[in-house]
Amino acid sequence: MAQAVRALFFDVFGTLVDWRTSIARETRAILAPLGYFLDWFAFADAWRSEYQPAMEEVRSGRFPFCRLDVLHRRNLERILERFNVGGLSESILAELNLGWHRLDGWPDSAPGLARLKRKFIIAPVSNGNISLMVDLARRNGFPWDAILGSEIAGDFKPKPRVYLAACEALDLAPSACMMVAAHSNDLSAAATCGLKTGHVARPHEYGPGRGEKSPKLEVNAAAGNLEDLAAKLGA
Amino acid sequence: MAQAVRALFFDVFGTLVDWRTSIARETRAILAPLGYFLDWFAFADAWRSEYQPAMEEVRSGRFPFCRLDVLHRRNLERILERFNVGGLSESILAELNLGWHRLDGWPDSAPGLARLKRKFIIAPVSNGNISLMVDLARRNGFPWDAILGSEIAGDFKPKPRVYLAACEALDLAPSACMMVAAHSNDLSAAATCGLKTGHVARPHEYGPGRGEKSPKLEVNAAAGNLEDLAAKLGA
Repeated sequence: MAQAVRALFFDVFGTLVDWRTSIARETRAILAPLGYFLDWFAFADAWRSEYQPAMEEVRSGRFPFCRLDVLHRRNLERILERFNVGGLSESILAELNLGWHRLDGWPDSAPGLARLKRKFIIAPVSNGNISLMVDLARRNGFPWDAILGSEIAGDFKPKPRVYLAACEALDLAPSACMMVAAHSNDLSAAATCGLKTGHVARPHEYGPGRGEKSPKLEVNAAAGNLEDLAAKLGA
Repeated sequence: MAQAVRALFFDVFGTLVDWRTSIARETRAILAPLGYFLDWFAFADAWRSEYQPAMEEVRSGRFPFCRLDVLHRRNLERILERFNVGGLSESILAELNLGWHRLDGWPDSAPGLARLKRKFIIAPVSNGNISLMVDLARRNGFPWDAILGSEIAGDFKPKPRVYLAACEALDLAPSACMMVAAHSNDLSAAATCGLKTGHVARPHEYGPGRGEKSPKLEVNAAAGNLEDLAAKLGA
């Protein structure tokens, strides 16, 4: 690392928060009282499986950019049909969709970020929209310096614009910024834009034993969790 | 206030930070060692007096939007000439311009924001750019939930787009947002967009006795400082 890193950019879904357990819990809390008994983890997985295809329509230019909240809602309606859930009221649908604003952080996320903030500017560079990021930060105590990511870039990762818009917003060269994620494809795209890379292992993101234990590419730092990353970056 | 306020938007220059004393100090710290002895407060006032005319070129559509850092730099070069300061190196000019990233908060700003954050989402809605807001927040301990304002809106206050883009980013109705400022014209423009308004007295912003002691329009809350505002808003 010739140039010193000044800012750390964080992927959020999976890297900082456990979307799978949280969405299963949130969905159950709303639908079980209405008499539905689904495989809640399967529901969470199905909803998440629509995530990349929906963003791909935007990334490819077939759809104009819109916030992730809007894509989540469209995906929700598809998944409900598949699980034979119908006739929900608008307020229930809205409440289900806001489940993505109530995800819980991994236990090391908030203390790790607090430690990293002492040495680095820290910001999410997520595909989530600003209001979603604000709600997750307030719920989990993520002490962001700014909310960057898809909404200020007008596109979704791994498109280069998202990483470069974040560097630009902080007036920093890409080489002074590090992307931190539990997903090698995110880090690979960031590296192509000239950013440094930090991998965090989340081996259970998609369920027990279903997550990246280690990076699939060469990275500037590889850590077992955010506190470990702080130690490795001298924060 | 029929609809409950969920978010507070803050003006920054003058409302949260004492730009005049800070710029006089920062400019002196850089130029005095080079042998210049200016009226440092007059220099700060002159630099600030170019602020509205520069933004007006953008607001009127004569110039495309650019970050405040860029306008500050152009204004700096004009003012230096007026004060007969010439031949400064690029690194000195850049350092002078970064003086705006090193402004000190009024004593009540950080504790008042910490208190208000417990009840409300808080964000700057300033004409300053994101990196400037981040630097001021890290220097002064302003615990923002997000950095909103001119850079995400692509225009400068008091243009309606800046207030409305902030509401939009948080997915809130304007009536669920309150603009907080020490300047009645800022509050008047926000009210026109449907936001609620909070005035903070900063009677010495432009020098002893030269600042707004009270609002020049009807507001939803008028406070002597940010701690007083927190008390008045029940935070």
